[in-house]
Amino acid sequence: MLLEKINSPEQLKQLTPGQLPQLAKEIRQFLVDNLFFTGGHLGANLGVVELTIALHYLFDSPRDKIIWDVGHQAYVHKILTGRADRFNTLRKYKGLCGFPKRAESEHDVWETGHSSTSLSAAMGMATARDMAGDDYKVIAVIGDGAMTGGMAYEALNHIGHEQKDIMVILNDNEMSIEPNVGAMYNYLGKLRTHKHYHKVKEEVETLLKRIPAIGGKVAKSVERLKDSIKYLLVSGVIFEELGFTYLGPVDGHHIDDVMSSLKQGAQIKGPVLIHVVTKKGKGYKPAEEAADNLHSVGATKVESGALQRAPKGPNYKNVFADTLIQLAERDPRIVAITPAMLGGSGLIKFVERFPDRCFDVGIAEQHATTLAAGIATQGQKPVLAIYSTFLQRGYDQVIHDIARQNLNVFLAIDRAGLVGADGETHQGVFDIAFLRCLPNMTVMMPKDENEFRHMIYTALQYDGGPIAVRYPRGEGMGVPMDEPLRTIPIGQSEMLHEGQDVTLLAFGPMVSLALKAAHALQKEGIHARVINARFAKPLDADMLLQQANDDMPIVTIEEGVTAGGFGSAVLEFYAQHHIYHMAVQTMGVPDYFVEHGSVRELREEVGLTVENIAAKARKMALKRRRRA
Amino acid sequence: MLLEKINSPEQLKQLTPGQLPQLAKEIRQFLVDNLFFTGGHLGANLGVVELTIALHYLFDSPRDKIIWDVGHQAYVHKILTGRADRFNTLRKYKGLCGFPKRAESEHDVWETGHSSTSLSAAMGMATARDMAGDDYKVIAVIGDGAMTGGMAYEALNHIGHEQKDIMVILNDNEMSIEPNVGAMYNYLGKLRTHKHYHKVKEEVETLLKRIPAIGGKVAKSVERLKDSIKYLLVSGVIFEELGFTYLGPVDGHHIDDVMSSLKQGAQIKGPVLIHVVTKKGKGYKPAEEAADNLHSVGATKVESGALQRAPKGPNYKNVFADTLIQLAERDPRIVAITPAMLGGSGLIKFVERFPDRCFDVGIAEQHATTLAAGIATQGQKPVLAIYSTFLQRGYDQVIHDIARQNLNVFLAIDRAGLVGADGETHQGVFDIAFLRCLPNMTVMMPKDENEFRHMIYTALQYDGGPIAVRYPRGEGMGVPMDEPLRTIPIGQSEMLHEGQDVTLLAFGPMVSLALKAAHALQKEGIHARVINARFAKPLDADMLLQQANDDMPIVTIEEGVTAGGFGSAVLEFYAQHHIYHMAVQTMGVPDYFVEHGSVRELREEVGLTVENIAAKARKMALKRRRRA
Repeated sequence: MLLEKINSPEQLKQLTPGQLPQLAKEIRQFLVDNLFFTGGHLGANLGVVELTIALHYLFDSPRDKIIWDVGHQAYVHKILTGRADRFNTLRKYKGLCGFPKRAESEHDVWETGHSSTSLSAAMGMATARDMAGDDYKVIAVIGDGAMTGGMAYEALNHIGHEQKDIMVILNDNEMSIEPNVGAMYNYLGKLRTHKHYHKVKEEVETLLKRIPAIGGKVAKSVERLKDSIKYLLVSGVIFEELGFTYLGPVDGHHIDDVMSSLKQGAQIKGPVLIHVVTKKGKGYKPAEEAADNLHSVGATKVESGALQRAPKGPNYKNVFADTLIQLAERDPRIVAITPAMLGGSGLIKFVERFPDRCFDVGIAEQHATTLAAGIATQGQKPVLAIYSTFLQRGYDQVIHDIARQNLNVFLAIDRAGLVGADGETHQGVFDIAFLRCLPNMTVMMPKDENEFRHMIYTALQYDGGPIAVRYPRGEGMGVPMDEPLRTIPIGQSEMLHEGQDVTLLAFGPMVSLALKAAHALQKEGIHARVINARFAKPLDADMLLQQANDDMPIVTIEEGVTAGGFGSAVLEFYAQHHIYHMAVQTMGVPDYFVEHGSVRELREEVGLTVENIAAKARKMALKRRRRA
Repeated sequence: MLLEKINSPEQLKQLTPGQLPQLAKEIRQFLVDNLFFTGGHLGANLGVVELTIALHYLFDSPRDKIIWDVGHQAYVHKILTGRADRFNTLRKYKGLCGFPKRAESEHDVWETGHSSTSLSAAMGMATARDMAGDDYKVIAVIGDGAMTGGMAYEALNHIGHEQKDIMVILNDNEMSIEPNVGAMYNYLGKLRTHKHYHKVKEEVETLLKRIPAIGGKVAKSVERLKDSIKYLLVSGVIFEELGFTYLGPVDGHHIDDVMSSLKQGAQIKGPVLIHVVTKKGKGYKPAEEAADNLHSVGATKVESGALQRAPKGPNYKNVFADTLIQLAERDPRIVAITPAMLGGSGLIKFVERFPDRCFDVGIAEQHATTLAAGIATQGQKPVLAIYSTFLQRGYDQVIHDIARQNLNVFLAIDRAGLVGADGETHQGVFDIAFLRCLPNMTVMMPKDENEFRHMIYTALQYDGGPIAVRYPRGEGMGVPMDEPLRTIPIGQSEMLHEGQDVTLLAFGPMVSLALKAAHALQKEGIHARVINARFAKPLDADMLLQQANDDMPIVTIEEGVTAGGFGSAVLEFYAQHHIYHMAVQTMGVPDYFVEHGSVRELREEVGLTVENIAAKARKMALKRRRRA
């Protein structure tokens, strides 16, 4: 076993080039073996084994900076930089992060999770390097999917203009998470299909040199020349025009070819783009054969593909897709948009049923958001299915295009709240705060998957402007689903449990924790009122005034940041109504970035537990009794 | 006068093509005459006179949708669609908006203000059109500057892929607000310099047809051919590769040429890009000769270039630039970044002094933000100078790249608060709410331009993570400037006026209103305490606890949305500290989008006035006295 001896790039460099293919084989086995137990992004990492080995073999990390775009493909990098022995903790609480993490290793020079940031980061590091008079290499590894993100283009444009020494490795695996979309993808496809274009390019140049003065007759070779001109046109000309030297395409699984391209690229002054063609899932048959190349696998799914535990209820994303299909059957105006998350959002079902009414725009959240606004101006009903943290990318578009024009766009915000193993970059905890401060905005969250369906229906019936339904990652509660779908009056909460000592005012799935807390308190003789808030904006004014009339202390509970969140809105409400006697406690996610772990562990860490809710409520209830 | 008879596109269509140049002349005179009194975006509108006439002459607005990117060049469109008689109210309170506004005219089908949204909007409208089985034209007019924005690229990519019938008019005026930057600009420059490329293209094709079988000798014509190949390569190939039919470049001031291009474009199936070359300020000598082509002029500045009223104090942007230069002389790690606002941010001075330490990245806020993060990873000190509403474009980058990695980036947030004539799209009222909910973030605002300098110094000394200083548009208070610069302890407020009846806790320039209110109350025998908050995050805990000890009612005052703002943070503080007896009133911008007008008029409208502050404080103080 070679891998056992490799705990750092220095040890890697002790191997002969001839040993590297064997190492690649061992790393692939290591990945499959480990992810069997931990879960993780298998497909993407199998695709970059040779590329990662070559980078660490040739360059001098951490002096040279290797930046991994998105970062879920950095497992091989983690293995080669001394973290193989901790791989059994991958994506687990307090374990290895599934993305690069600066606190984890000096070799992780840039943290990621969201796409398309690597080129801007590289430009930043190259700028700092040149300011300091240093000369290390700056290398960004970016997938073809991430290239559809506008900020990658903004950075390409700037790098090309400034002519900084930066090496961009375009890891073209022919698909990102979803089969790639967009014209740039087609363009890359053209490059791929002309594997021998370098040879052809030389040939064309030779031909040109040999062309005599105008005259003679049309011959067969002219046709050949004209075809060759086309090759010239597609030979990386977009990148060349933007100021990059373009090298490739090179077979990313042929380690000698990769190394010679990297060496060649390292010699060139100014920005270089090396086009490396890889295959997601490479070298592991089940991954190569799966439709998504086993992009991301759950623990124990690697071999069998089956989950062990039966889910409590249907997955929220499937409830979303099924309900949307049900409603779209009746209303031809409904159209769905996703930024590269057809599978993740559940919309894969929708696009099968309504291929003309579903747009996967690639990793392009800004465009997706304003596209929805544009559709809404003409009276159709756009649904933007987007993860909470990815909506951050379209924030100005939500403000400037959707909310300001007060357009009827349904924001279906998936992965809201703590998401678990993906960690910091994916915790959907800011959206309540950043949406409720916007005029014209409505923000809902269902207590369970049945209410979710009624909220989807409500959002699509509503014509008062933008309306957001945020919902959690993963499975529902397993509650009965009722028909027919009905509209929930905007801003109306729901009383679930009467009580006279304290009010638990919960938003979304926190309702079930509040109910459990109320039941626990009941046994102690404390009677908690439990209210399902349903809306973070607008608030239920009548209900809040009623609590004030009843002089009830309130505990607000939400799975989002406390700063500026739902509870904060309740505080504002009482201040605006000159009601100063209310005792309100706000429970939510505290003021730090929450790392990875299971949702249960993370809720425990931040204090969003039945016990904590009960403790806060008990204290307030007893204080009130003493006062009374 | 032809213009007098034109109140609608229908009336425009009554003119003969031969009359259009005369109309163009009259419109130019109209613009200059009116903007002399109102101020506004003169240069950009002088550049699109012929293009706008041609669009309304040939197409059928509002059935055909004309979308103006950014929208400050839509004055001619407003004139031709029945709003000439209201031009004396342009950008004035309750007057014509300086941007397209749907409530103003059925011809304004899309509202703008920020850049690069038009292509996504066009794709949205074309999608809705096709869903409805309709066949109107969708036309987006976008400048070369807006093309540097990533979302424009995201949209190009999607439009090219879907092959929707959309006409994109690239209004290439060789500069946006600032001389354009980036590789795409260089590329467009190449197109521009090859005006006769169409002829050359044909020539090349003829040549190719006449090339005989390989043989013969190298001749002079080969050199000529090789040059011609270059023409082929630059003939709009980027747009063609992305799936567009490319037409142009056409002289945007030759109305017949523009019309024939538009007619040609209208015949083509699928997406078309027409490259129109215009000149900002065209036809008005002072504008043609000015460095910025009189992009934006203040009232009465058109002819003389001089302001009438002497300013009270130096402009905040100049204080920013001067202080930054002063500090950068001593600290070589300081580097400035601006997204296309070298002049607007004041950094034009900085780049003259430190050309290697200042980056104008174009209209590319996402890249600008992450670029700053990248620079900070290597220990340099990046300053991102950005308008409050444009930072919305980089929100995910602030969260994911800067705050999450806790990098020392100084966010210099200009145009914070109500900005005046630019209106809704430019009111910097959300940043307190959307920044203070982020972990690791510090948010400051100075009470005047002198404190601003100390805050700039403080921000550049701070090494605890990201730090934002927000500051208003326009002139300072005219206060004395003191030296040496000193650091303000993080989270420390400043007591400015002692009092025992009520506390006015003000953020930023609201402090001066609070002081005036306190003086007014003093005459009534009410003693208001005035505190300059300085920080929206972290709050001054000692000060807030002191208010609680003193049982002081508090009025918080900020020029930002009340929902989730600074006042909301104060409410949260007391809730978190289980302090329930405090009477807190929050004053700020209410929950609607505030339109254009002077800052004074807008403050009056939203209630941020000395009188209102005094009224609220009086009520609370008297209530407290009654209670005591």
